[in-house]
Amino acid sequence: MGTTLLIGEKINTSRKEVQEAVSNMDAVSIRKLAREQAEAGAHYIDVNCGTFLEREAELMTWMVNEIQEEVDKPLCIDSPNPKALRAGLSASKNGQPMINSISGEKERYEQILPLVLEYNAKIVALCMDNKGIPQDAERRVEIASKLIRDMEAAGVERDNIYVDPLIQPISTSTENALSAIRCMEMVLEKYPGVHITCGLSNISFGLPKRQLINQTFMVMCMLAGLDSIILDPSDKRMMALVKTSEMLLNKDPYSISYLKAYRQKLLDL
Amino acid sequence: MGTTLLIGEKINTSRKEVQEAVSNMDAVSIRKLAREQAEAGAHYIDVNCGTFLEREAELMTWMVNEIQEEVDKPLCIDSPNPKALRAGLSASKNGQPMINSISGEKERYEQILPLVLEYNAKIVALCMDNKGIPQDAERRVEIASKLIRDMEAAGVERDNIYVDPLIQPISTSTENALSAIRCMEMVLEKYPGVHITCGLSNISFGLPKRQLINQTFMVMCMLAGLDSIILDPSDKRMMALVKTSEMLLNKDPYSISYLKAYRQKLLDL
Repeated sequence: MGTTLLIGEKINTSRKEVQEAVSNMDAVSIRKLAREQAEAGAHYIDVNCGTFLEREAELMTWMVNEIQEEVDKPLCIDSPNPKALRAGLSASKNGQPMINSISGEKERYEQILPLVLEYNAKIVALCMDNKGIPQDAERRVEIASKLIRDMEAAGVERDNIYVDPLIQPISTSTENALSAIRCMEMVLEKYPGVHITCGLSNISFGLPKRQLINQTFMVMCMLAGLDSIILDPSDKRMMALVKTSEMLLNKDPYSISYLKAYRQKLLDL
Repeated sequence: MGTTLLIGEKINTSRKEVQEAVSNMDAVSIRKLAREQAEAGAHYIDVNCGTFLEREAELMTWMVNEIQEEVDKPLCIDSPNPKALRAGLSASKNGQPMINSISGEKERYEQILPLVLEYNAKIVALCMDNKGIPQDAERRVEIASKLIRDMEAAGVERDNIYVDPLIQPISTSTENALSAIRCMEMVLEKYPGVHITCGLSNISFGLPKRQLINQTFMVMCMLAGLDSIILDPSDKRMMALVKTSEMLLNKDPYSISYLKAYRQKLLDL
């Protein structure tokens, strides 16, 4: 309760450093990234090796096992591929796993829902369906609503659902930030108790000073109800802004957590 | 339209440097503060010499005249004292003046309303009355509502009214940030077209790393509808966050203003 669920995003083979480490079965580098993220404050460690199409399930098992030798944080198994998800989930033993992600796409939904139930996983629900990602907030809320209703009917607890509005760049439309924010607000109004998550960095794609944009957008999203973030926990300013936002949003009684971060010099930017 | 009205707060005799300059009738220092704030992006220059109780009106006239010799920005005449306000307003010639401030306190309201009308001034309306500053958002909205209704009935245009919810420190209650934000949202819902202003820094009183708190709170307030800020325009990060927030809030078509700030190196923090 109260704190923001932070998911460390760095172990992802779309990043060159990780692609190389996984290619070479370099466990030391993967473990180091897991440890650094855990120490920096990540509550979950995302694991993604989606670039290794054919070998994805096999490598997922290897990565999950290596990471769990190093840290005790639960894992966010990140793939659209049900085989890779099952491989990662069956190897997971650090507490409740998270699946990233399900969506309103029919086949994906049908293949991934059984995994959510079997592993009692937290589930990231993307606001897209077979027609793609809608531009307007209302249509995205419709997709989120159907996903929440269908998953709840199937037995998924609302507290395990993390709606991701899917952030689109400001550089393609200056309405995109407000559209995502309104989507978050509307989903929370309709389904109190559901969680909201997102990866923030897409908002700044194509613009200079991306960190400034990502950080500013994050603060706005937290006011709108964002309570889980997929981020790089080594970004000190982003982490300080999360802490400060929690205090301002009355999620940090007596500012205890803020003052602790101050004493630990985490607010020295 | 679209941009945030920035009021430079530095020419205020509660600041030691300004107190000394005014004591010594040191016009050079006062003019320099005005020029620096104008160059840093202030749209209005606040003028306050409230510490000089007996001489306030006389010194206000002197300050306003000196500042207008230096910059062409309009002035925000800042005093609870009707005599000092009249002195500043009658000397103002740089476009539409602003009065800081009126409130729901009966005597103050009755003395200041005629000045608002006579000088067709923008007016900061504080959410307080004879009983003081209410803790809860609802009571502050009631005071704002009465002020807006009464001023509109007297002939003040809504577009000239800047409601200030009055920010109280997080250190006295961790509900204070959300209470102010809800007040802003509710006032805007009831009275679309009215403006919202505030001084932010009180939010962080008594806590360490005040700039971090002020900046984070400012971004949240902008999402809630804050469109005027009383600030130190030489705070580069605050100014960059205002610019970035305007873009995210779809107030900067094609990101033109953001990209201009980037080229001018105003986003190099």
